[in-house]
Amino acid sequence: MEGAQAVREAQRHGRVREVFVTEAAATRHPDLLGPAPAWITERAAASLSDTVTPQGIFAVCDLLDVPLARALAGAPQLVAVCVGVADPGNAGTVVRVADAAGADAVVLAGDTVDPHNGKAVRASTGSLFHLPIARERDTAAALTTLVADAHGELDLHDPAVAPVLAGPVAWIFGGEAHGVPATVADGADHRVRVPIHGRAESLNLATAAAVCLYASVGARRIRSRPDE
Amino acid sequence: MEGAQAVREAQRHGRVREVFVTEAAATRHPDLLGPAPAWITERAAASLSDTVTPQGIFAVCDLLDVPLARALAGAPQLVAVCVGVADPGNAGTVVRVADAAGADAVVLAGDTVDPHNGKAVRASTGSLFHLPIARERDTAAALTTLVADAHGELDLHDPAVAPVLAGPVAWIFGGEAHGVPATVADGADHRVRVPIHGRAESLNLATAAAVCLYASVGARRIRSRPDE
Repeated sequence: MEGAQAVREAQRHGRVREVFVTEAAATRHPDLLGPAPAWITERAAASLSDTVTPQGIFAVCDLLDVPLARALAGAPQLVAVCVGVADPGNAGTVVRVADAAGADAVVLAGDTVDPHNGKAVRASTGSLFHLPIARERDTAAALTTLVADAHGELDLHDPAVAPVLAGPVAWIFGGEAHGVPATVADGADHRVRVPIHGRAESLNLATAAAVCLYASVGARRIRSRPDE
Repeated sequence: MEGAQAVREAQRHGRVREVFVTEAAATRHPDLLGPAPAWITERAAASLSDTVTPQGIFAVCDLLDVPLARALAGAPQLVAVCVGVADPGNAGTVVRVADAAGADAVVLAGDTVDPHNGKAVRASTGSLFHLPIARERDTAAALTTLVADAHGELDLHDPAVAPVLAGPVAWIFGGEAHGVPATVADGADHRVRVPIHGRAESLNLATAAAVCLYASVGARRIRSRPDE
């Protein structure tokens, strides 16, 4: 973990093993040092960092991912699955959106980027700690699987589709370049398209995931209306 | 414009004044050279570029923004407004999402980043050319103004709110750090919150914009159902 915000979040969740800090950063963040910080020079901080202006505070943490069975324990209602998502910013943003949408877990499948990548951690803004993250090839069968697919046979905004979206569902999002592999798409229960009304060719992966996950949130809200 | 995709998009929309290209890039993209390209060295390309691995092809284009009155001519139904959005990637992504949602225009207000910024152009993936972009402080009064606000009094997913979302509306999105200025929020017709169901503190600006704009798209779809 790099930076005060990430280190603070990791400490709040009891995942920090060791803190590395410069003298200057220690002065700024006395609350983050823990019992026995390791002191490093500014030069070491620059070398550890993958940002242009390092904050001078780092933590070595436990790995965050859990086995798939544990991630999907209980009766999950909403799960986000990334298949072959290469960009760490996108993967981290999907975790953040999944958290905000109240998802029960995120599964990073296929060749998806490591969630412990620094940029993924930063993009998740702490959400990596908030819900179970599993790294597996397959997802559990108890959920209806929906693939976000520009050419899907279901329209996200078709009112008849709302009961499907309301779940329990696992939303599957494919990589930036080629989308979800055909074998995964063919094996899913449904393929759902986000309607494109203008002349945009597509949506960015993370924004498409936000629209889909929140469509499920909205559909559940309608389903649970007391007058229905 | 930098890169083959952006130059191609600019040419398709007749906005290119002059093309600058390396010999190597000219071999790869003979279709993009136009009548009289200016030849540049690899070194000049590296210096013009703001990417790590420059593609070697650039175009000087007309500025894309139009006066507000022209952007809002006709009877716009859905407009996206950015106020003080500093990150060019976010601004470009909002333009892309607005295009995909079928918005009639994007207004970049306050201290929002220049849409001609290279990173904004790339993030928009051509959508900057697809709908009118205006740079102004104020938005027109004919639209209901909705501010995306984490503490808004309306819940995006409240079924009673759907007729409001269905428009005609201008959605206003604030800067990354401080959101929409209080004066703008107070002056809007409604403040709408995207419900956060997990433990995420917030959504990224561009993903929040995607959820809000597509909520309007979905609400219009419900409103226009033939059985209602």
